[in-house]
Amino acid sequence: MTGLTVYERLNRLGITLPSASEPAAKYANYVKVNNLLFVSGKGPAGNPDGKLGEDFTTIAGYQFARQAGIEVLAVLQSAAGSLDNVKRVVKIQGFVNATPHFKEHHKVLDGCSDLMLDVFGDKGAHARSVFGAVSLRDNLPIIIDSLFEIEQ
Amino acid sequence: MTGLTVYERLNRLGITLPSASEPAAKYANYVKVNNLLFVSGKGPAGNPDGKLGEDFTTIAGYQFARQAGIEVLAVLQSAAGSLDNVKRVVKIQGFVNATPHFKEHHKVLDGCSDLMLDVFGDKGAHARSVFGAVSLRDNLPIIIDSLFEIEQ
Amino acid sequence: MTGLTVYERLNRLGITLPSASEPAAKYANYVKVNNLLFVSGKGPAGNPDGKLGEDFTTIAGYQFARQAGIEVLAVLQSAAGSLDNVKRVVKIQGFVNATPHFKEHHKVLDGCSDLMLDVFGDKGAHARSVFGAVSLRDNLPIIIDSLFEIEQ
Repeated sequence: MTGLTVYERLNRLGITLPSASEPAAKYANYVKVNNLLFVSGKGPAGNPDGKLGEDFTTIAGYQFARQAGIEVLAVLQSAAGSLDNVKRVVKIQGFVNATPHFKEHHKVLDGCSDLMLDVFGDKGAHARSVFGAVSLRDNLPIIIDSLFEIEQ
Repeated sequence: MTGLTVYERLNRLGITLPSASEPAAKYANYVKVNNLLFVSGKGPAGNPDGKLGEDFTTIAGYQFARQAGIEVLAVLQSAAGSLDNVKRVVKIQGFVNATPHFKEHHKVLDGCSDLMLDVFGDKGAHARSVFGAVSLRDNLPIIIDSLFEIEQ
Repeated sequence: MTGLTVYERLNRLGITLPSASEPAAKYANYVKVNNLLFVSGKGPAGNPDGKLGEDFTTIAGYQFARQAGIEVLAVLQSAAGSLDNVKRVVKIQGFVNATPHFKEHHKVLDGCSDLMLDVFGDKGAHARSVFGAVSLRDNLPIIIDSLFEIEQ
């Protein structure tokens, strides 16, 4: 999809961005400092609940990571005015709600990483890390924490 | 408490900042880069120990999160010279020592988020994320990792 | 080792940096923004597997943290051109694959912190935080997430 704008890519991917979801508690959806935009942790829409390695397969987890990424994009759009103002996806951390024996956290987080590459192309290549959380708010399967560089 | 300085707010809240606690191991309490101040993970004073969902209620966890936040403020004051030099609370991550079935991590972290809003007003609104850690150093109930914007 | 260059220090420490390891999934090894270099999560070479508090002692964990730190240095060297371009180790997060009753996460992470101080001297003093992950990719014992300031 080289040469397409971010919104043309979203359209081809069949993704319609929702409105930014409200923070789950007493905090802001994002904070801007200099050209950096820090986005609060976001889970998939619809509040699915359960653990990887027990309630969900890695493939289901991949889809949840992608859905959580769409919630991040919704915040990003409201924060930056337009996704066209995003210069780079800088960093993603994935908190995977998992059992002690789960080993495929990286394959789960790929759902969010692939989304960023699909939507932003080269600007979507990011640093990242992922780990198993013993539990998450409302038993969400995944939460995505993220950082972006934006045009000033 | 609109119009009050940070120290007037602390006074009304009845909070006396302790000296910054020593790092628990071989690292610095904070590092400044540009106008960003990265603060090392801090737990509540007095080294309480136990897990949310087992040893402590969510309400007790909220208080621990607030106490850990006070330890963060102590470091912040020593790093920035004065809390008046803090331009913005940028990002907070909460590591909650929790059981696999705990679901109220966000309500626990509100103890720290409310403190930041109480002390800094609008400048206290921050991005944040929270997850359940299977265990923490010395079995602390919570550790707060944080990032601030300061005047240069 | 005051007055020595970073490469003289590495030499005295008997450390030969490997080539930067490939990302374990679909992401970049690092992203640069302004003078900040965000490095993706790295585990120790050779893919050891097991948990602290069960399969490995704290002393073994310390060595794994050091080895993971060497993998971080390898990425850093390829990203910054030379370790001489590193101005400061800013922040380290350690994800320790641990049991619910493990309490020495800080002593484990010291393996990485000591390496940074050994290699960079005063520039190696960093902010950090550490927690117990219920599980990690491929059952790695530790993953290190890191941030550096580099010369522009």
